[in-house]
Amino acid sequence: MSSVKLHPMKEVKIIIEGEHLRFVTDVLDRIKASGYTIFSSISGKGHGGFHEGHMMFNDTSSLQMVLTVVPEEKLDPILSGLKPFLERHSGSLFVLDACVLRPDHFDPADS
Amino acid sequence: MSSVKLHPMKEVKIIIEGEHLRFVTDVLDRIKASGYTIFSSISGKGHGGFHEGHMMFNDTSSLQMVLTVVPEEKLDPILSGLKPFLERHSGSLFVLDACVLRPDHFDPADS
Amino acid sequence: MSSVKLHPMKEVKIIIEGEHLRFVTDVLDRIKASGYTIFSSISGKGHGGFHEGHMMFNDTSSLQMVLTVVPEEKLDPILSGLKPFLERHSGSLFVLDACVLRPDHFDPADS
Repeated sequence: MSSVKLHPMKEVKIIIEGEHLRFVTDVLDRIKASGYTIFSSISGKGHGGFHEGHMMFNDTSSLQMVLTVVPEEKLDPILSGLKPFLERHSGSLFVLDACVLRPDHFDPADS
Repeated sequence: MSSVKLHPMKEVKIIIEGEHLRFVTDVLDRIKASGYTIFSSISGKGHGGFHEGHMMFNDTSSLQMVLTVVPEEKLDPILSGLKPFLERHSGSLFVLDACVLRPDHFDPADS
Repeated sequence: MSSVKLHPMKEVKIIIEGEHLRFVTDVLDRIKASGYTIFSSISGKGHGGFHEGHMMFNDTSSLQMVLTVVPEEKLDPILSGLKPFLERHSGSLFVLDACVLRPDHFDPADS
């Protein structure tokens, strides 16, 4: 048992082509996700044909990953906001259980 | 409860020296992991003596992280395919529970 | 069921401004975390006012993410070592359950 209290949250990772980054962060802003981190030196080989066959490992320009951690009640709005987009475009979304030290930092004053 | 249905998968992260990247992605291709993302602006201090002592933080050339998300039945082939390699070389492999929106995107037609 | 045995650990991710990277890695070194990986091509929008409003997506200089995986008994020392720091500075810390192939690589000889 840890003596430092941890609070359960949801970690959401969204991998999209760089041109769609703003769409994703706008959804997060609208839902008032408290913050997010963007990983830009990434490349990949995806399902559904984007970067078919052997990828160009040097072609890192087109992919970005957005990482955010939110209270569980914000997960559904994020998924609902991004699902139609992910059905039309390349991209992936993963949800994991995570814990944080300071839940107040992930739940802005609006809620 | 989320009203958007999520499907349980396994997230696998493999951190290796850059020269071994192709070996890892070849294993993933063979097992028909549906996709993966490669993180290249990373550096690290490892167990087992690779980058002994205080690392050179600017020396990011040698490490890469491969992230993939697969159905549970593909986890064992990936682990079996990479374990002998990881016993001979520097590197780390982590497995986490993750959920995805679209399980069909992670389970290509071969299976 | 996987036939390759996996061992439960804790994945800790710490996102901090670049100038504080050394503080975080010093805590990990002191606790004898066996290794860590540093992600440097990241940017972000945080809670609490750091990068207020719409972030500068090109301003990637200031953020770094440290990823480490440790046995559960090292989690509390890490959290205790970083909590006061994270209360005074911008930054986030997430803890997730992870599994590894080789627990000995994450539990150096000191313990």
